[in-house]
Amino acid sequence: MPSANAPRNTRIQTGSWDTVRRSDVSRRTFNPIRDVLSRPVQPLSTPKSTKEPISLSIGDPTVFGNFKTHPVVVEAVEEAVRSFSFNGYPPSVGVPQAREAVASKYTHPQAPLTANDVVMASGCSGAVEMAISVLCSEGQNILLPRPGFCLYNTVAGSRNIETRLYNLVAERNWEVDIAHMESLIDENTAAILINNPSNPCGSNFTKAHLKAILDVCERHRVPLISDEIYADMVFSGQVFTPTATLTSTVPILTLGGLAKQWLVPGWRIGWILIHDRNNAFAQVRQGLFALSTLINGPCAPIQAAIPKIFAEIPDDYLQTLNSQLETHARILEAELAKAPGLEVITPQGAMYVMVKLNINSFKDISDDADFCHKLKWEESVEILPGECFAYPGTVRLVITPPQDKLHTAASRIAAFCKRHSK
Amino acid sequence: MPSANAPRNTRIQTGSWDTVRRSDVSRRTFNPIRDVLSRPVQPLSTPKSTKEPISLSIGDPTVFGNFKTHPVVVEAVEEAVRSFSFNGYPPSVGVPQAREAVASKYTHPQAPLTANDVVMASGCSGAVEMAISVLCSEGQNILLPRPGFCLYNTVAGSRNIETRLYNLVAERNWEVDIAHMESLIDENTAAILINNPSNPCGSNFTKAHLKAILDVCERHRVPLISDEIYADMVFSGQVFTPTATLTSTVPILTLGGLAKQWLVPGWRIGWILIHDRNNAFAQVRQGLFALSTLINGPCAPIQAAIPKIFAEIPDDYLQTLNSQLETHARILEAELAKAPGLEVITPQGAMYVMVKLNINSFKDISDDADFCHKLKWEESVEILPGECFAYPGTVRLVITPPQDKLHTAASRIAAFCKRHSK
Repeated sequence: MPSANAPRNTRIQTGSWDTVRRSDVSRRTFNPIRDVLSRPVQPLSTPKSTKEPISLSIGDPTVFGNFKTHPVVVEAVEEAVRSFSFNGYPPSVGVPQAREAVASKYTHPQAPLTANDVVMASGCSGAVEMAISVLCSEGQNILLPRPGFCLYNTVAGSRNIETRLYNLVAERNWEVDIAHMESLIDENTAAILINNPSNPCGSNFTKAHLKAILDVCERHRVPLISDEIYADMVFSGQVFTPTATLTSTVPILTLGGLAKQWLVPGWRIGWILIHDRNNAFAQVRQGLFALSTLINGPCAPIQAAIPKIFAEIPDDYLQTLNSQLETHARILEAELAKAPGLEVITPQGAMYVMVKLNINSFKDISDDADFCHKLKWEESVEILPGECFAYPGTVRLVITPPQDKLHTAASRIAAFCKRHSK
Repeated sequence: MPSANAPRNTRIQTGSWDTVRRSDVSRRTFNPIRDVLSRPVQPLSTPKSTKEPISLSIGDPTVFGNFKTHPVVVEAVEEAVRSFSFNGYPPSVGVPQAREAVASKYTHPQAPLTANDVVMASGCSGAVEMAISVLCSEGQNILLPRPGFCLYNTVAGSRNIETRLYNLVAERNWEVDIAHMESLIDENTAAILINNPSNPCGSNFTKAHLKAILDVCERHRVPLISDEIYADMVFSGQVFTPTATLTSTVPILTLGGLAKQWLVPGWRIGWILIHDRNNAFAQVRQGLFALSTLINGPCAPIQAAIPKIFAEIPDDYLQTLNSQLETHARILEAELAKAPGLEVITPQGAMYVMVKLNINSFKDISDDADFCHKLKWEESVEILPGECFAYPGTVRLVITPPQDKLHTAASRIAAFCKRHSK
């Protein structure tokens, strides 16, 4: 029974429906890694390889089963679930015990934290989404690293926030080109984002360099988002410094989570540390609390497991993990050094090796995407082109597969390079 | 070292920072329930009650410990966690076994589903957020129920989507005023959302009424979001009908999750069922997949537990739960019937009782918010004013607390009403 005053009666339709239009937001939400990985591999003139496929493309240390989280982590979750005490709605900003444990672990005399400064998020991806969403409005811009993790662009694009990419300098262990970063700032710059240690670079900034970045924020009064999901994951001789411990004036949202250090990316537990300075983040804190009500935070029993995880995991766990990762990195580096046309940039932490391609040294490779495409076709080795990180001319290799697979993959890559070099 | 061409050098600042402005999105994200519950209770002339506080305000069945999920649900999660097989990143649309299990449970000859039609979300809240975000663009409008769950408004407001509230008619078991709903539709209407069984109404639509709603969608070619988080939770004599089983032409996104029926709202596991019709949702499906990449889905090991949960939970589990809930509802209804100035609308399902206030029968109660405020002050009983659901003149009571607490709360409310009636 159409109502007499239905203004749309005129367009009452019959016959089949047109395709329902998806929203502008969903159209703007684009993840290049997903795009590259789902791109069909075009048949080439050469026969397709029948070798066992090896993927060095996704930054998930659990894929091959060689990197397992510590049993105490699993026990902690079992206890929380068995308790029946965390089946109800958690506060949208997080389970109090979890916020308390995260604050206690990451508080520092120069960057003090209480539970009220912690907002739990659905993975560090959720933390990235909330941090960008709370600081940046449509029409404003955010400074992002190039090369950089593509989710930053995906989130900003989805929210219609302009992204401006500042250069990282490979020759200087991927330090920021400070002058370039500063030149991108204007009156609409809402935030600067850094990622340290870096995906995809595997770099770790010095204190001096972090201070130089903070000086830029200070000069222009631009708040900082410091994505530290790889916090403390650095190799021998390297010191990781939490950015917030180096300033008493620049307000910072530090992002972290269980994914990498605790080897459980699928658990989707992340957090935002609100490093307020002189109450500059009073509004932003309110904004984060408001945004947290949209999905009511991550899985409560896993949040509830965090205090036990932090308290009972052995001291040597991280040390062992880091030395294993370093061994893996050095294997890839040594093997790839033998391959013509490749220049490995020595990683200092995290889980990645970035390799520069000397495209001119190859007779039939047009660019980084073509390199990865042909490598996958001819050698069944999957790696990501720098294109995914807005940095063409490079490829990124994940270092977490077992050592024998790394040897195999590296030798296949070396053979591939020899075969295609001029 | 400021770069020569930094356009913002002119506004280089010294002294302390101004407050960092929070984004427009975060400003638009407002949850009325959080607001009401956090509102300080103003001291009244009467002395504050020292009685044991009883909260009938939050729709969380686990608060009092009387409603516990089945042990097999906990076992299923323990197995998934102990397996170490679900610590890695799940596909952003969900763990394949979980999508398969959800599709198998909810597929219907009239509304067939495969795993590819299921998108896992971070709780049903996450499903609401994704469904509204994928269908509605800024500047468009969405039709929402009044009274209705406030998250719909919170999400739409956050995304700058206009909300138009269609009336539910208390006298007709909260059926939709179809003519009113239809009168709100215009060329910018991107979706209609219904919630059945309803929070806050506790109502359950008949097949005939659902068909009448689908006719509106069909006439105007407006897709439907059917929030069925309380699916199958109806009382004796009632039959729950999944909306999608009643149409072969209207494309529907059906929302659900583990929260209510499986009594684990804190686990944050929800889903969207894509009921495409004649490929009308081809774009929307892509859009949902894109949006899922923003936070990479909910907790993987809990997703992985879903097949065992669905397969091994006893047949009488839901029956027992529903009859317990019905008993609780009838207790509140019977007790409150004795209170002057209240009119209970008999619930047919879900976890709530809506009560109309005859404000004129009270000598010193100005409105529903005042009623709840004074009730909390004088009787230590917390309930929510209709204001939270855009329906002033009513109050919502949660029926899940233990029976003795329901009796106590109801008698306190009755005493309160007598004390304040003319």
